[in-house]
Amino acid sequence: MITDYSQRLIVQEVSPRDGLQIEPTWVETADKVQLIDQLSLAGFTRIEAGSFVSPKAIPALRDGEQVFQGIARRPGVIYVALIPNLKGAQRALHAEADELNLVLSASQSHNRANMRMTREQSLAAFADVVSLVSNSGVSLNGSVATTFGCPFEGPVDEDVVMRLVDAYQTFGMQGVTLADTTGMANPRQVYRLVRRVLERLPASALTLHFHNTRGLGLCNVLAAYEAGARRFDASLGGLGGCPFAPGASGNICTEDLVNLCEEIGIDTGIDLPHLLKLSRTLPSLLGHEMPGQVAKAGRNRDLHPLPPGID
Amino acid sequence: MITDYSQRLIVQEVSPRDGLQIEPTWVETADKVQLIDQLSLAGFTRIEAGSFVSPKAIPALRDGEQVFQGIARRPGVIYVALIPNLKGAQRALHAEADELNLVLSASQSHNRANMRMTREQSLAAFADVVSLVSNSGVSLNGSVATTFGCPFEGPVDEDVVMRLVDAYQTFGMQGVTLADTTGMANPRQVYRLVRRVLERLPASALTLHFHNTRGLGLCNVLAAYEAGARRFDASLGGLGGCPFAPGASGNICTEDLVNLCEEIGIDTGIDLPHLLKLSRTLPSLLGHEMPGQVAKAGRNRDLHPLPPGID
Repeated sequence: MITDYSQRLIVQEVSPRDGLQIEPTWVETADKVQLIDQLSLAGFTRIEAGSFVSPKAIPALRDGEQVFQGIARRPGVIYVALIPNLKGAQRALHAEADELNLVLSASQSHNRANMRMTREQSLAAFADVVSLVSNSGVSLNGSVATTFGCPFEGPVDEDVVMRLVDAYQTFGMQGVTLADTTGMANPRQVYRLVRRVLERLPASALTLHFHNTRGLGLCNVLAAYEAGARRFDASLGGLGGCPFAPGASGNICTEDLVNLCEEIGIDTGIDLPHLLKLSRTLPSLLGHEMPGQVAKAGRNRDLHPLPPGID
Repeated sequence: MITDYSQRLIVQEVSPRDGLQIEPTWVETADKVQLIDQLSLAGFTRIEAGSFVSPKAIPALRDGEQVFQGIARRPGVIYVALIPNLKGAQRALHAEADELNLVLSASQSHNRANMRMTREQSLAAFADVVSLVSNSGVSLNGSVATTFGCPFEGPVDEDVVMRLVDAYQTFGMQGVTLADTTGMANPRQVYRLVRRVLERLPASALTLHFHNTRGLGLCNVLAAYEAGARRFDASLGGLGGCPFAPGASGNICTEDLVNLCEEIGIDTGIDLPHLLKLSRTLPSLLGHEMPGQVAKAGRNRDLHPLPPGID
């Protein structure tokens, strides 16, 4: 708590991708476009707007091309696409994504379950993507899923994480994301690993991706910020779940994070009232309540009238 | 994050009181007794077991006498009763509570709405309780509600909080609780105020009571611990709501707190598997889901099998 809170915290909004991908309700392309356009207006500088994966694997996001074509691109906003392989990269470049995000898992078993190949095979496939994208003007970000723990194996060796970060660096990728895919991170672990990674990367190249599966998402953000991290993924309403934790929270909730930042004096550049209004449209769009708290409770400054009889 | 995590964190379990008090479902006395007895077995050293308020004001807790009579008192466990006034104190002494917890609000309007009197009138009434209880061998704890913000007034003057802490000290009370009644605290504020209060009180006399209304409950615990606080209220399952935040979380969730402590290496003395088993009985007892996360997601060590086809 001797932290300097004067440095801006950059929120990358991921609800259109990580948020929607496991929703059972189909969201119309026009609604996705409207969501992203509203997020652009709320002040985000980075939005993960969709993915270019097999429509069989993730049917909820099968309209990636139409979404990228439909959105109103706001100057200064980077629209990111998640891609699993070379074919996805070709589609994302054709759709004029500003940045491509590749993913592999620090845990071998999670990578095999998720990508149907080993980590080494994933890295080899990424080399083809790097060749395709280089000289295109499009950025590349490499994500390390299960950085803080694996739902199949448990603890993950930090040296493995560091080797994957190095591999991304060797590829010349502009950014790296450390992802707590199933919400297993704790703040002590986060602080230690972020300090270690920031010995090799500038803070501007590092994103932390936390889930709130065990209630520790915002604690982990504060620990990472204290360790020097400045960029965080978050999802409107806390949208996005975890298949291993039915009923538990998903991604950290954007408006809860922005509210925290406002309360402690960290600038985010995000318009919180706009965000709350937008978040409150999600239950009717998706047919269920969201895990986020501030959209329900309001901000501290939203005062309540005194009960009758008390003047 | 240069924090020393070697000091035990003491959890005072408040589900039988703050958790149940606004539940619309009547919980039978026998079920309350069983809950408290199971909590005693889980390793808590402090349990807020009930309150002695008007049955009209809080009908859910109208069986305070029967609950205190029915529980199996485990040696070393302190069974606390919340009391609003002298009559409540007489009832609590008769029921052989080990400690009495009195409450007033730092915010004048909240005290008037909650207690139907001014802060000054509350303090004057507490003097009678102090006279009654002195030389009884029973401890007194004074709580300061709305310490970190008031739902009617907004920000609360820290000097007012300090004066109330001083007043409790002058009464000779053994403990003081700073309560974030409607979940308005933030970790920076918590750190600052805890440091200030610990200049006057030993850590063994200070309890922090946080709600997770805006998702910051566990962040606030970590900030308070870092500032030197060692004792925290929490509620099984996160039971307990806030009338000003329909649908939002209530008290911080005990098993989520204990899980956090285990993950970062803070000892609590609580049996987490026992606690999770107990928490998972709450939805059927009360007819709704609980806000707690770990009871749904499991602990990190509860690994999942690989999907079919991955060996």
